[in-house]
Amino acid sequence: MKLKIINPNTTASMTAKIGECARAAAGPGVTVDATSPRQGPPAIESHADAALAVPGVLEEIAAGEAEGYDGYVIACFGDPGLKAARELARGPVVGIAEAAMRTAAYLGRGFSVVTTLSRTVGQAQDLVDEYGVSRSCLGIHACEIPVLALETDPQARAIIQQACKDALASDGSDAIVLGCAGMADLCHDLSADLGVSVVDGVAAATVAVEGLVRMRLSTGKLREFALPRSGR
Amino acid sequence: MKLKIINPNTTASMTAKIGECARAAAGPGVTVDATSPRQGPPAIESHADAALAVPGVLEEIAAGEAEGYDGYVIACFGDPGLKAARELARGPVVGIAEAAMRTAAYLGRGFSVVTTLSRTVGQAQDLVDEYGVSRSCLGIHACEIPVLALETDPQARAIIQQACKDALASDGSDAIVLGCAGMADLCHDLSADLGVSVVDGVAAATVAVEGLVRMRLSTGKLREFALPRSGR
Amino acid sequence: MKLKIINPNTTASMTAKIGECARAAAGPGVTVDATSPRQGPPAIESHADAALAVPGVLEEIAAGEAEGYDGYVIACFGDPGLKAARELARGPVVGIAEAAMRTAAYLGRGFSVVTTLSRTVGQAQDLVDEYGVSRSCLGIHACEIPVLALETDPQARAIIQQACKDALASDGSDAIVLGCAGMADLCHDLSADLGVSVVDGVAAATVAVEGLVRMRLSTGKLREFALPRSGR
Amino acid sequence: MKLKIINPNTTASMTAKIGECARAAAGPGVTVDATSPRQGPPAIESHADAALAVPGVLEEIAAGEAEGYDGYVIACFGDPGLKAARELARGPVVGIAEAAMRTAAYLGRGFSVVTTLSRTVGQAQDLVDEYGVSRSCLGIHACEIPVLALETDPQARAIIQQACKDALASDGSDAIVLGCAGMADLCHDLSADLGVSVVDGVAAATVAVEGLVRMRLSTGKLREFALPRSGR
Amino acid sequence: MKLKIINPNTTASMTAKIGECARAAAGPGVTVDATSPRQGPPAIESHADAALAVPGVLEEIAAGEAEGYDGYVIACFGDPGLKAARELARGPVVGIAEAAMRTAAYLGRGFSVVTTLSRTVGQAQDLVDEYGVSRSCLGIHACEIPVLALETDPQARAIIQQACKDALASDGSDAIVLGCAGMADLCHDLSADLGVSVVDGVAAATVAVEGLVRMRLSTGKLREFALPRSGR
Amino acid sequence: MKLKIINPNTTASMTAKIGECARAAAGPGVTVDATSPRQGPPAIESHADAALAVPGVLEEIAAGEAEGYDGYVIACFGDPGLKAARELARGPVVGIAEAAMRTAAYLGRGFSVVTTLSRTVGQAQDLVDEYGVSRSCLGIHACEIPVLALETDPQARAIIQQACKDALASDGSDAIVLGCAGMADLCHDLSADLGVSVVDGVAAATVAVEGLVRMRLSTGKLREFALPRSGR
Repeated sequence: MKLKIINPNTTASMTAKIGECARAAAGPGVTVDATSPRQGPPAIESHADAALAVPGVLEEIAAGEAEGYDGYVIACFGDPGLKAARELARGPVVGIAEAAMRTAAYLGRGFSVVTTLSRTVGQAQDLVDEYGVSRSCLGIHACEIPVLALETDPQARAIIQQACKDALASDGSDAIVLGCAGMADLCHDLSADLGVSVVDGVAAATVAVEGLVRMRLSTGKLREFALPRSGR
Repeated sequence: MKLKIINPNTTASMTAKIGECARAAAGPGVTVDATSPRQGPPAIESHADAALAVPGVLEEIAAGEAEGYDGYVIACFGDPGLKAARELARGPVVGIAEAAMRTAAYLGRGFSVVTTLSRTVGQAQDLVDEYGVSRSCLGIHACEIPVLALETDPQARAIIQQACKDALASDGSDAIVLGCAGMADLCHDLSADLGVSVVDGVAAATVAVEGLVRMRLSTGKLREFALPRSGR
Repeated sequence: MKLKIINPNTTASMTAKIGECARAAAGPGVTVDATSPRQGPPAIESHADAALAVPGVLEEIAAGEAEGYDGYVIACFGDPGLKAARELARGPVVGIAEAAMRTAAYLGRGFSVVTTLSRTVGQAQDLVDEYGVSRSCLGIHACEIPVLALETDPQARAIIQQACKDALASDGSDAIVLGCAGMADLCHDLSADLGVSVVDGVAAATVAVEGLVRMRLSTGKLREFALPRSGR
Repeated sequence: MKLKIINPNTTASMTAKIGECARAAAGPGVTVDATSPRQGPPAIESHADAALAVPGVLEEIAAGEAEGYDGYVIACFGDPGLKAARELARGPVVGIAEAAMRTAAYLGRGFSVVTTLSRTVGQAQDLVDEYGVSRSCLGIHACEIPVLALETDPQARAIIQQACKDALASDGSDAIVLGCAGMADLCHDLSADLGVSVVDGVAAATVAVEGLVRMRLSTGKLREFALPRSGR
Repeated sequence: MKLKIINPNTTASMTAKIGECARAAAGPGVTVDATSPRQGPPAIESHADAALAVPGVLEEIAAGEAEGYDGYVIACFGDPGLKAARELARGPVVGIAEAAMRTAAYLGRGFSVVTTLSRTVGQAQDLVDEYGVSRSCLGIHACEIPVLALETDPQARAIIQQACKDALASDGSDAIVLGCAGMADLCHDLSADLGVSVVDGVAAATVAVEGLVRMRLSTGKLREFALPRSGR
Repeated sequence: MKLKIINPNTTASMTAKIGECARAAAGPGVTVDATSPRQGPPAIESHADAALAVPGVLEEIAAGEAEGYDGYVIACFGDPGLKAARELARGPVVGIAEAAMRTAAYLGRGFSVVTTLSRTVGQAQDLVDEYGVSRSCLGIHACEIPVLALETDPQARAIIQQACKDALASDGSDAIVLGCAGMADLCHDLSADLGVSVVDGVAAATVAVEGLVRMRLSTGKLREFALPRSGR
């Protein structure tokens, strides 16, 4: 089984980190490759950023189809281009927001999302509604750390950990969902420190798409998600 | 007042038609210019088409800001790039789906949408949910005419008229919403033939954005829809 | 085009103010007349007040039909008698609560309503649900100023302004909706002071009904909103 | 215990029938008086009819307060004036639509409403949403018999019975709710013929308000439903 | 009329108290017997407790059918086994949570639930959603008193009263719903002290099932709630 | 990793089939044991059946904790006892209905459920609502084959296949969810015949719990799902 993890932004260090976390989550015998578009925004922190990242994501899907991948992960918490990617791919495509939130729904009454900038909270709320987890999602909390500062700000981890603690207390939640692919490497340490399950979407989506491929399940291709007439 | 109507597809004849319909709807003293992106899909009939049209739409917004437009219409029934456009523009931006559906909500218990291909029905349903008109939208009906065939198929109007009649009967609706900018020119004739109000989103969005500008109302720019840090 | 703005309460000074605000919002060539019922409550601050105002509103609609008006606005934030008015009028009828809330929905993620007495908040919440703006309406805030005191209390404007500031901060909203026709004249000053869009329903409804008439759209008259058998 | 059943229309024969059905449902020791407003529409078949009936309903409530009634029923399936009546009365007020629908919710997965004219279906749907029974209400069916024809049309009962049968089959429902006070006398015969529970709102509301009075429960009078400042 | 009130836990003193409260609420001529299962948990404070109590509840229903009861109340605020009981009984079965919440919905804009342990709040929220009272239920508050301590802790009543006061203030509610059958005896005193209606589910369910029997209404037995093939 | 798959009914042949399907879905290195309660109903076709099966399910969980299992699957489409099981287990517990429905949500716009008897459809609808997949679940269809007849009726597979075809056509769905653990072995053949993804909950839940264990995610044990005071 060969999975392609697409980081929609063009920051190579983040792509490498995402690849590591995805490989750590994958089962034995699964090949996991992480890539990012040739061009596009270096970080996705607005609706415009997300929109401008999508054409590159779709190029990666199209290339992946030629390369023979069995399934795909879109590794940005806004799940940019997810429906379009499902049109273009034969195999399953999973976004990290949907996987993280659906996975967290197995863990109790509800979860809190801890994300980067407050301007992205609305987008996360839209996804909560779209994915049907509004009863499970008890709060979305921004820690006001820009995406790329996750890698450079020495205080980032402490700030995120405090935001998680505050979220657990105010929301009465059973688990934390990390609201950015750039937080993937913090997952296990945060979980140990907080004493609750912390869901990283990169791992959750990798595990989900691996499971779909193993069960031979894929996007319905006879209707809305058929290959577009415009081909590609 | 100067409004820019953006046809997200690159078919010039459709842009011209949209411009005419928008001008016919605008009030006295309002300048209405219709444009389309320099490149992108010639018709938008899939999630991938919509995604690939958005960067061109955003370029038109950015250019419009330099050109001094007071407000914008995105003239494709999927409202592609609407939120990103709101980040980039100082003045209001209105999509034709949201304007058509909110306008139709003033006309009675509910409306039926008549659109082009059935593969776009899911996207229209998503917008119904997002715009809060699920109680008002009583049905979404595809007539299986591709977007560009609206201009070339001599039977298109008859097929659409029949789809409207069927929708009114099956949904028990008070009005029809036309689900494609390419149907804008059919609006008044259909209304006369059917005996009910028929809402064209191009007109509805032009009237809506003109009203917003007149009332000096615009997108909140202090939070989610602030100009992105990535500028443009 | 001739529009009739009906103030459901019988306070003439408020009717005059509403008329001024509606005329200021209307486009060129539109005649705007403001009236109020011959008898009924002087202010609408309860369900009973609203109920007792409706027969007078319907008389004004019936008279308006004889007088040849093209459309109507019901200028009280509870939209009293709106559905009944739609049965009686040939042209469109718009309430200021529905117009204000649907207009504010174009302006970003969400809005806050600032209204008069807390006992009216439940009614406003009912309208939020009915008009499908529950995702957009982020809060409803009472400033505990009775309707008629809006015209006499020298501190009214300062209290309202503070309530708007508090609402914006607590709700994280992009715009303010004024929850009483009696606040219409404060709209532009408040907007300037607060730095966000402030939506006055009188203006929003006048603009909306003008747009409907211009687009030749009106209430569906074949079903629920047909003229009642009891005529009038 | 003394209960007042208010028939919002002015048709005396219907008031008499409603009184009989209410008395048959009341427990031992409960006095039940049925009245109707001095003036107003003879039947309620539109939003305008309902609106014009409300002032008379409120007069009956005000009179009832002077007469010392412990509780009230509003006996029209649109529950006209219910919230305003709750402001004016010290004791509980129950509408027959809310009582019928909440009572039917105890009887299984769901119920079907069978009502008079199709133009009233929208109003019934609004009440379903307001009363929180949208999961239980599986369908609303009109039999196109005007309210007053229920008493004069010899075929009325047969038509209603067939409409009930059709509703049970198409909705897969567990019970029928009769959607008009004028059908109250048909309840037990229909139930016997159909073999399912048939809920008459007049009985259900009488039983509900009797229960509330017996438990000493009444409308909260400290907030939204306090006596209006305008008194009466 | 003969009603059976089933206390799903096995604590005899609580069964006795429940029986007294039910008898106090029942009308003249109604026989009310209170029982509890022969074995099962002494208190129900978790999902597991509730699950383990259900077989005993169903045995009581089956015995009740042989004994000729006309209707049943399940007297635990989680309504354990309610749907299964409806399959087994010919007459109506009412849970105290559904009865309390539907009854409280007649009393104004909304109510607050005051319950025992915070770990049961999620279960109460599930019932709020299932019974369609999410607009009416304005808050669920735990006072952290275990079920059996309601009978032994001398401070229990004071703590509950304070929790009710806090709930009324924070939720802006019109009534209180007591979230445990073990609080039934506090109902009238709390109401007197708080000055608002306080709904005890034991009384509310007894009154509701008495009303259903009087109106000859019962569970639909032709579909989902037919006697199971496995009989019993 | 050691997983325990609990068949809540006591039919050994079905337990064996479930075990085979779970093992086929599990990844390398995962031990999968299938068990069923010592006593309880042989098939679960009613609310009462489900309720009576739960104590046995909980005994299996408690035994599993002593035996050192890492996670559990409850293999009946009603997910009986799921929340109680989460209280008793340290590791994750997944029901086959929730896993099947959440997994199918990755596959397109929506899915259809094909289940056994129509009397179970209501229960499936309740789970759809609880799990937040009401937008994705486009229909629930009974084929009227009792659970145990799945193993003995030679026409069962043909009837199910036809029900799937009908469901796909009427619902316009992208995938099928099999609504009974007893259909698990039909999954791959049905998928091949129908040309769409067919989701078996036994496989989906096994894959889901394996993924949760691999990611070290489990039920939050600090609140609602803490081990009950009553221990076990």
